[in-house]
Amino acid sequence: MSIRPLHDRVIIKRIEAERTTASGIVIPDSAGEKPDQGEVIAVGKGKILENGSVRPLDVKVGDRVLFGKYAGQSVKVNGEEVLVAREEDILAVIEK
Amino acid sequence: MSIRPLHDRVIIKRIEAERTTASGIVIPDSAGEKPDQGEVIAVGKGKILENGSVRPLDVKVGDRVLFGKYAGQSVKVNGEEVLVAREEDILAVIEK
Amino acid sequence: MSIRPLHDRVIIKRIEAERTTASGIVIPDSAGEKPDQGEVIAVGKGKILENGSVRPLDVKVGDRVLFGKYAGQSVKVNGEEVLVAREEDILAVIEK
Amino acid sequence: MSIRPLHDRVIIKRIEAERTTASGIVIPDSAGEKPDQGEVIAVGKGKILENGSVRPLDVKVGDRVLFGKYAGQSVKVNGEEVLVAREEDILAVIEK
Amino acid sequence: MSIRPLHDRVIIKRIEAERTTASGIVIPDSAGEKPDQGEVIAVGKGKILENGSVRPLDVKVGDRVLFGKYAGQSVKVNGEEVLVAREEDILAVIEK
Amino acid sequence: MSIRPLHDRVIIKRIEAERTTASGIVIPDSAGEKPDQGEVIAVGKGKILENGSVRPLDVKVGDRVLFGKYAGQSVKVNGEEVLVAREEDILAVIEK
Amino acid sequence: MSIRPLHDRVIIKRIEAERTTASGIVIPDSAGEKPDQGEVIAVGKGKILENGSVRPLDVKVGDRVLFGKYAGQSVKVNGEEVLVAREEDILAVIEK
Repeated sequence: MSIRPLHDRVIIKRIEAERTTASGIVIPDSAGEKPDQGEVIAVGKGKILENGSVRPLDVKVGDRVLFGKYAGQSVKVNGEEVLVAREEDILAVIEK
Repeated sequence: MSIRPLHDRVIIKRIEAERTTASGIVIPDSAGEKPDQGEVIAVGKGKILENGSVRPLDVKVGDRVLFGKYAGQSVKVNGEEVLVAREEDILAVIEK
Repeated sequence: MSIRPLHDRVIIKRIEAERTTASGIVIPDSAGEKPDQGEVIAVGKGKILENGSVRPLDVKVGDRVLFGKYAGQSVKVNGEEVLVAREEDILAVIEK
Repeated sequence: MSIRPLHDRVIIKRIEAERTTASGIVIPDSAGEKPDQGEVIAVGKGKILENGSVRPLDVKVGDRVLFGKYAGQSVKVNGEEVLVAREEDILAVIEK
Repeated sequence: MSIRPLHDRVIIKRIEAERTTASGIVIPDSAGEKPDQGEVIAVGKGKILENGSVRPLDVKVGDRVLFGKYAGQSVKVNGEEVLVAREEDILAVIEK
Repeated sequence: MSIRPLHDRVIIKRIEAERTTASGIVIPDSAGEKPDQGEVIAVGKGKILENGSVRPLDVKVGDRVLFGKYAGQSVKVNGEEVLVAREEDILAVIEK
Repeated sequence: MSIRPLHDRVIIKRIEAERTTASGIVIPDSAGEKPDQGEVIAVGKGKILENGSVRPLDVKVGDRVLFGKYAGQSVKVNGEEVLVAREEDILAVIEK
C-alpha cells in the first residue's frame, strides 16, 4: 500500500534532528515540539499552472528538507505518522 | 438517481479507517470524529482555467483518498451521507 | 414578467426535499431550516473570463441542483421567493 | 446636467416595489428599508480587462434591475437620490 | 510649482456642493462633513496593466467628479488642501 | 558605501516641509509627526511583471515625492535615517 | 553539508551592525533586538512565474542585504542560526 500526493503536495517523514552535533543542522524549538525537518517519501506530479500545464516539483524522493513549523497536515501511513505538505511549504533542501 | 458534481468538485463516500491494523493508513483523530478518508463516487468534468479550457481532474471514481478534516460539505444521496469537496481539498490518493 | 440573471448567476426555486423517502436525496439540516436543493429556473449568459470571452454555464433551466447553505440572495419573483446564486455556489446536479 | 459613471459602474434610480401586487416582483425587507430594485439611468463604457480591452456592460439605460442590499453608494443627482453601483452588484434584469 | 500624480492617481480639488439648488447634484452627508465631489486638477499617465502597457485614464483635468467618502489622501498643494486618489475611487463624471 | 533597493523599491530621504510658506506644499499632520515628502536618493531596476519582464520605475533620483504616512520602512544609511518604500507607495512627484 | 533554498528563497546570515560607526548603515532598533541586515549565503534557482518560467534572483551569495524585521524563519545550519527568507523580503543590497 502506497500513497500518491496530488499535484504540488509532498509526503514527508519527520526526522529527529541530531541536536548535540556541532556540525548538524538543528531547528531551534521548544522542548517537546516536533522537529521541522524530514525526508521526502512521495511527491505529486507537479504544480498546475494557470495555463493548465504542469511544473514538476523541485524536490524528489529521498531529499532531506526543512519546512515551516505549521506546514501541512499529519496523517498515518502504514502505522507511521507522516506530513502532507505543499512544495511551497518547503524552505530548503539539505544537501550532504 | 445519480449526482453530477460541477467542475472541480468530487463526491466522496467516507470510509471508516481500520484503526487497529498495523499496516493500514489511519488518520489520527479524537474519539467520535469522522474519518478523513473515503472513496470517490463521482467527479466533475474538471477545473476551469482562466483561459476557459478545462483541466480533467487527477482523481477518478473508485479512488481511495485522504482529505482535510474541514473539507467540503456533507449531503445525503439515496439516504447515505456523502461529502462534496473540491479536488483541491484532496491531499493524496491511497494506492494498493 | 421574467427575470434574466447576469453573467454567471442563476435563479433557483427551492424544493422541499422528501425527507422520509429512503431513496431520495436529503440534505441534513436542523428543523425549520430551508432546504438546500432546488430547480434552476433561469441562467445567465455565462461566466466572463479574464480575456473577455464568455464561458456558458454548466447548468441549465430545469436542472435540479444542490447548493451551499449560505449561497446567494433571496428575492421574490411573481410572488414566489427564489434564490439568485452564482454557478460557483452550486455543488452538484441531481440526475434522474 | 448629466452624470457619466466610470468603467463598469452604473447609475440606478430606485423603484418602490409594488408590494401588494400578487404578480409583482417584491424584495422581502424589513419595514422602512430601501427597495433593492431600480431603473438604470446611466452606464459606464464597460469593464476594463487585464489586457486593457473594454467589455461593454450587459445592462443598458432603461433596464429594471435587482441588486444586493448593500450595493453601491448613494448620491443625489438633480435633487434626486440615486445609487452608483458596479455591474457586478446587479443580480438580474427584470424583463417584461 | 506643480504636482504630477503617479500612474492611475489623480489630484482632486474638492468643491462645496450647492446644497440649496434644486437642480444641483448634492451628496447627502452629515453636517460638517467634507463634500465628495471635486474638480480634477492633475492626472497620472495611466493605469499600468499586467502586461506592462499603460491604459490612459478616463478622466481629464477640469472634469468634475464624484468620489467615495473615504477615497484617497489629503495633502496641501500651494497652501490649498487637495485629494490624491486613484481613478478607481472615482464614481462618475458630472457633465454639464 | 551605497544602497541599491531591489525591484520596485526606492530609497527616500525625508524633507522637512516649509510649513510657513504660503506657496509651499505642506502635508497636514499633527505636531511632531514626520513629514510625508522627501527626495528620492536611489531607485530599484523596476517592477517585475507577471511575464517576467521589468517595467522601469516612474520616479528617478532627485525627484521630490509625496508618500503615504505609513509607507515603507525606516533604516539608517551612513548615519542618516531614510525610508525604503515601494513605488506603489508614492502618491505624486512635486515638479518645480 | 550545505543547504539549498527552494525557488525564490535565500539563506541569510545576520550581521551585527556597527552601531557606533558614523558612516555605517545602522538599523534603528530597541536594545536586544536582532539586527536586520546580513550576508546572503545561499540563493534559490529563482522565482517561478505564472507561465512556468523561472526568473533568477536579483541577489547573489556574498551580498550584504537589508530585510524587514519580521522577514523569514530562523533555522540553524552547522550550529549557526540563519534566516530563510524570500527575495521579496529583501529591501536593498548594501554596496561598498
